Amino acid sequence: MDQTTATQASRPLPTVGARHIDPHAYPDGIAFLDGQYLPMSQAKVSVLDWGFLHSDATYDTVHVWNGRFFRLDLHLDRFFGGLEKLRMTIPFDRDGVAEILHNCVALSGHRAAYVEMLGTRGASPTFSRDPRQAINRFMAFAVPFGSVANAEQLQRGLRVAISDKVRIPPASVDPSIKNYHWLDLVRGLYDAYDRGAETALILDFNGNVAEGPGFNVFCVKDGKLSTPAIGVLPGITRRTVFDLCAEDGLVAAAADVSVAALKAADEVFITSTAGGIMPVTEIDGAAIADGKVGPVTGRLMVLYWQKHDDPAWSSQVSYP
Amino acid sequence: MDQTTATQASRPLPTVGARHIDPHAYPDGIAFLDGQYLPMSQAKVSVLDWGFLHSDATYDTVHVWNGRFFRLDLHLDRFFGGLEKLRMTIPFDRDGVAEILHNCVALSGHRAAYVEMLGTRGASPTFSRDPRQAINRFMAFAVPFGSVANAEQLQRGLRVAISDKVRIPPASVDPSIKNYHWLDLVRGLYDAYDRGAETALILDFNGNVAEGPGFNVFCVKDGKLSTPAIGVLPGITRRTVFDLCAEDGLVAAAADVSVAALKAADEVFITSTAGGIMPVTEIDGAAIADGKVGPVTGRLMVLYWQKHDDPAWSSQVSYP
Repeated sequence: MDQTTATQASRPLPTVGARHIDPHAYPDGIAFLDGQYLPMSQAKVSVLDWGFLHSDATYDTVHVWNGRFFRLDLHLDRFFGGLEKLRMTIPFDRDGVAEILHNCVALSGHRAAYVEMLGTRGASPTFSRDPRQAINRFMAFAVPFGSVANAEQLQRGLRVAISDKVRIPPASVDPSIKNYHWLDLVRGLYDAYDRGAETALILDFNGNVAEGPGFNVFCVKDGKLSTPAIGVLPGITRRTVFDLCAEDGLVAAAADVSVAALKAADEVFITSTAGGIMPVTEIDGAAIADGKVGPVTGRLMVLYWQKHDDPAWSSQVSYP
Repeated sequence: MDQTTATQASRPLPTVGARHIDPHAYPDGIAFLDGQYLPMSQAKVSVLDWGFLHSDATYDTVHVWNGRFFRLDLHLDRFFGGLEKLRMTIPFDRDGVAEILHNCVALSGHRAAYVEMLGTRGASPTFSRDPRQAINRFMAFAVPFGSVANAEQLQRGLRVAISDKVRIPPASVDPSIKNYHWLDLVRGLYDAYDRGAETALILDFNGNVAEGPGFNVFCVKDGKLSTPAIGVLPGITRRTVFDLCAEDGLVAAAADVSVAALKAADEVFITSTAGGIMPVTEIDGAAIADGKVGPVTGRLMVLYWQKHDDPAWSSQVSYP
């Protein structure tokens, strides 16, 4: 180190700029931050916000399809539930947040949008480590809709690998608080890529299947649907599958799903706000049943997208 | 929702600003970002950076005391190890990062500084969910030195509570990758505050003591030191205690530390870059031994701060 110091001492120090010149490109969209509506390039979090430094944050993502929010009320419920569990407060109630989300989408012009609301612990001006002294912050943004599966994958089914990574257990982090703790899922993704798959599932602490990066998983066996019950995010699209099954006379249950049961299923699909209901036709290099998208999956996909025009399940954005 | 939509439709949409006007105050310091040295108010991460949205990031924190970095080499080792395990690359080698950290401190003028280097997954301009398509980012900053314990707490010892939260296990996230997954620790902190304590310890998945928010823990019993072995961050200050013990003829071991053993110890202390070696004199409302800072703790605290002037353990900052 002393040599390094000596070298540095002989050089003049660099100058300090007044303002960051951002060289990065951003998707087209609108954000809400500190009372202002801004282009996505301006949607930034201080590096000192505990939402970044400690991932001390919760969020929710809702989508807009054909100019309509889908099940916004359920996403608002979960978001405000997460804030309360983390003991965060924001200066907006449900209607206030709904209005901000609406404005972000309307100003963006996106008819198909991925819309995120988020609350962070924030920071105190003194950089105190006591989270009670931090001023909590709220942000929201709307960007173009994105899907876990692309058009080809939706048509032929995703190729998934099961990683031995264990989803962060509920004894550590309450999974009903939608959170950004994803290093287990990111590691699972790289494990999947290494094995030639397109996305990953990881395990729960008992060795059963838990969930994947941003999605829940279902299997169909003898006409009955199952999805992991414990240690998973209670996804809104997962819940929507239960609601669609109830309407359509299908039996669905939350229960342990072993790796063996998943591989021996008649059909497998994943669910996410980012893409809806998406078929899986290959796990760890082996086909699920005949390797084609199954009839139950296909029917649920149709019902799911039909609901997006139903005023009982969706609400219109008023574009300028 | 339809009513809400109707109300919103009747109002004009808000205007979109060109640039964020930041109402928040920041500590005095200098950051490095995108090749620029900037005031802390400009040190921001895009909300679309996976380092924020998925806490897909690693970092390290080194401190400067009396104008000297302490054990910078060890922090650089751990930081580059974390980057490699997360499969991230940054456009700087060890010397490059050391120079940036040096410049941040020198430009800040802080003689006692908390200095952080961090790597995030970054993002792709298309907001692709594939982490392989993201451009990894590097940042660094120097702010005034902060401590887990204030002056009074250092003198009389911290009051700690043990939460039943379980530290995120190694099967989920490799603890040797220093990471921002802190919701378990934040929950432990609130549990501790609720019980009148000043900070928290949480458990490992076997029910033994793991660590606290940003620190490791040691106990002393019959002259021998122990610190939890598994599921904890391998802290540099923790390692420094082992090094000081070796120089001073003390026996220290990494091993399981039960809650009962911790409470029955002769002395307890915590270790962190943010504060060094800090005594604990009360756990769950009961005094440790006679409730005073013990002799081994006191001696290690003195040795620890003495090493900050030793050129073998520290390196000088060249201020302008």
